[in-house]
Amino acid sequence: MQRRRLLQTLSRTQCPLRQPRQPQALELPTAAAPIQRLTIARFSSRNDGNSSNPQMAFPCLDKVENRTREIQSRRSNQGPEPSYTTGAHENFNATTPLLLDYGGVLREFTVAYETWGKLNDTKSNAILLHTGLSASSHAHSTPANPRPGWWEKFIGPGLPLDTDKFFVICTNVLGGCYGSTGPSSIDPANGERYATRFPILTINDMVRAQFHLLDNLGIEKLYASVGSSMGGMQSLAVGVIFPDRVQKIVSISGCARSHPYSIAMRHTQRQVLMADSNWNRGFYYDSVPPHLGMKLAREIATVTYRSGPEWEQRFGRQRADPSKPPALCPDFLIETYLDHAGEKFCLEYDPNSLLYVSKAMDLFDLGRENQEHINLLRISNAPKLENVTGETSTEPACSLTLPACPYEEQPSSLEENDLRQAEAQEDLLAGRRGPPRDLVEGLRNIWHPTLVMGVTSDILFPSWQQREVADALRAAGNQRVEYREFGEDVSLFGHDTFLLDLKHIGGGVREFLAEE
Amino acid sequence: MQRRRLLQTLSRTQCPLRQPRQPQALELPTAAAPIQRLTIARFSSRNDGNSSNPQMAFPCLDKVENRTREIQSRRSNQGPEPSYTTGAHENFNATTPLLLDYGGVLREFTVAYETWGKLNDTKSNAILLHTGLSASSHAHSTPANPRPGWWEKFIGPGLPLDTDKFFVICTNVLGGCYGSTGPSSIDPANGERYATRFPILTINDMVRAQFHLLDNLGIEKLYASVGSSMGGMQSLAVGVIFPDRVQKIVSISGCARSHPYSIAMRHTQRQVLMADSNWNRGFYYDSVPPHLGMKLAREIATVTYRSGPEWEQRFGRQRADPSKPPALCPDFLIETYLDHAGEKFCLEYDPNSLLYVSKAMDLFDLGRENQEHINLLRISNAPKLENVTGETSTEPACSLTLPACPYEEQPSSLEENDLRQAEAQEDLLAGRRGPPRDLVEGLRNIWHPTLVMGVTSDILFPSWQQREVADALRAAGNQRVEYREFGEDVSLFGHDTFLLDLKHIGGGVREFLAEE
Repeated sequence: MQRRRLLQTLSRTQCPLRQPRQPQALELPTAAAPIQRLTIARFSSRNDGNSSNPQMAFPCLDKVENRTREIQSRRSNQGPEPSYTTGAHENFNATTPLLLDYGGVLREFTVAYETWGKLNDTKSNAILLHTGLSASSHAHSTPANPRPGWWEKFIGPGLPLDTDKFFVICTNVLGGCYGSTGPSSIDPANGERYATRFPILTINDMVRAQFHLLDNLGIEKLYASVGSSMGGMQSLAVGVIFPDRVQKIVSISGCARSHPYSIAMRHTQRQVLMADSNWNRGFYYDSVPPHLGMKLAREIATVTYRSGPEWEQRFGRQRADPSKPPALCPDFLIETYLDHAGEKFCLEYDPNSLLYVSKAMDLFDLGRENQEHINLLRISNAPKLENVTGETSTEPACSLTLPACPYEEQPSSLEENDLRQAEAQEDLLAGRRGPPRDLVEGLRNIWHPTLVMGVTSDILFPSWQQREVADALRAAGNQRVEYREFGEDVSLFGHDTFLLDLKHIGGGVREFLAEE
Repeated sequence: MQRRRLLQTLSRTQCPLRQPRQPQALELPTAAAPIQRLTIARFSSRNDGNSSNPQMAFPCLDKVENRTREIQSRRSNQGPEPSYTTGAHENFNATTPLLLDYGGVLREFTVAYETWGKLNDTKSNAILLHTGLSASSHAHSTPANPRPGWWEKFIGPGLPLDTDKFFVICTNVLGGCYGSTGPSSIDPANGERYATRFPILTINDMVRAQFHLLDNLGIEKLYASVGSSMGGMQSLAVGVIFPDRVQKIVSISGCARSHPYSIAMRHTQRQVLMADSNWNRGFYYDSVPPHLGMKLAREIATVTYRSGPEWEQRFGRQRADPSKPPALCPDFLIETYLDHAGEKFCLEYDPNSLLYVSKAMDLFDLGRENQEHINLLRISNAPKLENVTGETSTEPACSLTLPACPYEEQPSSLEENDLRQAEAQEDLLAGRRGPPRDLVEGLRNIWHPTLVMGVTSDILFPSWQQREVADALRAAGNQRVEYREFGEDVSLFGHDTFLLDLKHIGGGVREFLAEE
């Protein structure tokens, strides 16, 4: 029933904004801006008159090639593309340098932000809302930017983030591209875009930048730190780094450290993006951006945002056009869904920001050992802050040398195999006995009332990670931890549940914030 | 403990076979074979003396560029690369044409195969073993090819496929590249490689080709059809298409129809591969193959072959070299594992075969409706078999036209959202009441003793799919269905369990085949 409705919608809709774009071959470049060489050569059709079967068509590749030509043509006529933006916002420009966890230095930096509600006289009602990977500060519409925000239904009078009571602040993260300093920003040292000369940054670096903004706003202590997904990481990081500057913590579909499966999924996205020759090792700001790599990366990401059971219900095995023969380009409805998700995103977000922010998520680890390691690094790098206007350090760049021998699975004998499985099983059972000691130690600073929420159908931040956070907090002695997990009977929307489920996610937030 | 051992192994091993390859820039091409233009331009390092932070290095991209140059250089010196092969095997050359499900025609075709054990006098002890997507017929070592096969430990005297009792046959699937006819084969109509003029094929087409081989071997009825993963699909297809020619059926980590999540994962792999400009819409046989696209596709596939909990144990958050700063190239151990899986595979399998065989998996659906649809197609296309030496049909190629409007998620009101979730929940619960009617009807031919096995930690072919097969068979009246599911206490190896777990997977097969 639902699927049929969907198909009817598909064929009915005229989608005036998304007509397939035509190549503008007839628009000649001006002399000042010569057309660059296309990265994907136009394929000339073959004479297949004498083959057993006809040659396939590849409309999905035509589309990508057309977009490249269109961007080229636009650049020739109108100059470089505008910067990435989601609309009007406030800027906090810090002129003091910022030392990053891994030794990078930003001589100055900007944090883009938006606010809703009113800061009270005691400045005690502020809530800092953290975003997911690619979101902007535009969590809710504002007079200056009436477009709906990414948490539009969760913020407002009487809503989970109640603007009658709270002053809600949302920032674009450091490293992002929607107003805050990131790889697409100009390096004051040389007047050029940072590109991949932007330093590696961490979730904690993003949080430190946010607290410079809070200082500027005169907010000594937050009423709450709230975030989902990557924002859920930041929310916990606030409690660890600035325990005295926050009262309550909410972490939704986040984690206290990234696990290998989510690192793997982000790895594939980064590698696919970096494989686009238009990426050009990060230096694409003067030419065609790697829109194909971005499209493919977003398609992979989209697979991790929802759940198999939801797609089973929504798309099943419906093909986009069952009257046509199967194709290697998008064919099943699920494929056109992914394709469209990629198309929609591929020019909306800065590719280098995707790489750096995604990497920051991989590096996130609130375990004690990592915290101590980073603290030592920060101490050893602190002198850099005193010499920020001098020459660039000549230390080697981030040039990890891979082991001479790549990882190779060892063929194991039957006995080894059995032993390995027995060990594995034991480890697993041991792991279930309690949260890792290193994490318990690492989270000791979080003594605050804390709400942790997870969704069973989430494959990117599986619910065991949220349980791990709650268990570790409790094991560290925090007696005010509230844990809520929403099963498949409540939501099949996987990781995206935090964007969609006002009733359960929103309800949980509202109740927790209202508690005395 | 285990991780530490792994790291020690990494640093100890000298891996003489896998030393990083050096570009052979000094070897000049012969006049007859000019060097082609590189698809990835060599990146010239920038002068970063005055930037705030140093430029990153990208050794992973250097490696890809070096491989391109190396292949170019080898081709110049030694001519085209040899065909894909895993070693010596038998060939069955059919000179009768084969009509494929979607209307393609192969005028003649080859099925590569290997056998173990001895066919008895009544020819009643044959087992047809089906492979996963990219495997060859080399399931076990042979005198002609002593290299261990992909199921080496499962085949032999006294082993699950007991060669004291059974005559085991394994084929390379139609569409593959290890000896059977596929896109890299020569089209007899024009003497050129098929490339993407190869017709769309299905799992059932592969099975039909296999039965031509059985005819040729004089085997009227199989003792059993056994397969895992894609082979599990084929195994069920045997029961549906040739119910009178098989006695027992074993389907391991397979399914009766592909579900949207696995279509999505294969979709991303295909799109990434097709995005490599070296793929050249399938016509790369005379130049550098799309090794980068293949590498990336394999990395994505590898994510789906194992499980998060296994990686959590094996890799955790270990970085390949913790003494180095973080990098955007592979950095965490899990990343070097994926990178290596891609490196190892990128020149081992024909990219076009990957596309066609992967697509065949997506199209697999043993539901009644699809079977009836294909049967009608086959009837309407049957006349093609009478005209195979004539002109190529002028009918349009596989040129699916996407809907004018791509799939767009509809912003739904709160009420709609609630309604949708309520409906979803109801559907889900309804689904749990029993297997889909269409599938029950579609599997009615399978009245044979059938063993269905699944692994709880499998994310690519989740165990609900195997339960669905068993339930559908039972609902269709089959009273000899055996269902085994291995939980996380037995295996964390996900989809790969069928390759590794001799005790449970092998044991299940052995016991089932021994039953009277």
